[in-house]
Amino acid sequence: MYKLYEFFSSGNCYKVRLLLNQLDIAFERIEIDILQGESRNPDFLSKNPNGRIPVLETETGQFLAESNAILFYLSEGTNFLPTDSFEKAQVLQWLFFEQYSHEPYIATSRYWISILGKAAEYREALKQKKAGGEAALRVMERHLTEHKFFVGERYTIADIALFAYTHVADEGGFDLAEFPAIQDWIERVQEQPKHIGITQQL
Amino acid sequence: MYKLYEFFSSGNCYKVRLLLNQLDIAFERIEIDILQGESRNPDFLSKNPNGRIPVLETETGQFLAESNAILFYLSEGTNFLPTDSFEKAQVLQWLFFEQYSHEPYIATSRYWISILGKAAEYREALKQKKAGGEAALRVMERHLTEHKFFVGERYTIADIALFAYTHVADEGGFDLAEFPAIQDWIERVQEQPKHIGITQQL
Repeated sequence: MYKLYEFFSSGNCYKVRLLLNQLDIAFERIEIDILQGESRNPDFLSKNPNGRIPVLETETGQFLAESNAILFYLSEGTNFLPTDSFEKAQVLQWLFFEQYSHEPYIATSRYWISILGKAAEYREALKQKKAGGEAALRVMERHLTEHKFFVGERYTIADIALFAYTHVADEGGFDLAEFPAIQDWIERVQEQPKHIGITQQL
Repeated sequence: MYKLYEFFSSGNCYKVRLLLNQLDIAFERIEIDILQGESRNPDFLSKNPNGRIPVLETETGQFLAESNAILFYLSEGTNFLPTDSFEKAQVLQWLFFEQYSHEPYIATSRYWISILGKAAEYREALKQKKAGGEAALRVMERHLTEHKFFVGERYTIADIALFAYTHVADEGGFDLAEFPAIQDWIERVQEQPKHIGITQQL
């Protein structure tokens, strides 16, 4: 059985939980309390030298880090990843967009405000994150105005990756009221079979 | 023929040039001067709404953004990407590591110091980039102490992606003298057939 080393409220970990649930794959959760430094102790670093969650452990004891690499690994050969070479590349384009242009702004703001509860302490840093996060949301809005999902007009891991932090963007101080196409897409994602919420215990 | 929209001195663009050359694929270069805002004008935004280079245009007029998604697309079915599912996922793990934990520190520092020539103006911001960049180099050093290449003991797009900004890390103020395994790996990468340098005109 797969083991998932994760911090429950992390969107990056939720991505993997959501896909595993939608693929009907059983797994064991191992909570790593990043607030207590558990992702930086020697035992965890032997699993991921980069000291970040989530990490997936396979049945043969191999470790895979980086949430979006884990999504790709689990979804290959399933309906959640296109087989067409260009569509697969488009999925990856959105996965890299998410990690470079979206997550560092929206997820980091949510972490400071809602996980650490330190909005006041991070006030200046949060201001710097605002423009980048809104730019990412505008790119998504533009795309979703013309498309139902990110790639191939159907639900893929590109939607899962972008949904994870977008649907809780308000917890990072971002107002989705200005992004109606994103709001409609969030509903479409939530209507997918075997969808689970980010705080839902399995 | 492929068209590559790129800014010549960008490491993200160099990755794609290097792979195209090693794959013996002809392509047309179109220089986008990001310093003049050319990646943010309406024509370019119609190709990549995220306003970033590189962008690959296929023969059928489709556009693909994100350097590492382009590497994956071009390398599928070649010796530069493993066919084994877990090894392919490990390649992706390193590609996401590069974009999240490496490029934002080392490439951004190089951009401020050596492309913009504004080391003094960005002195405080550069200090903040130092720890993250050194942490990424330590993760690489640890891996390369035990491995010749990043995945499967052979040269893949994981090496290309990480080589692009690592071998010019000094231009971002990082000293590779402390990382002997990285230095040896840089030599191994440079010895690959049809290798080209970052400043090499094709």
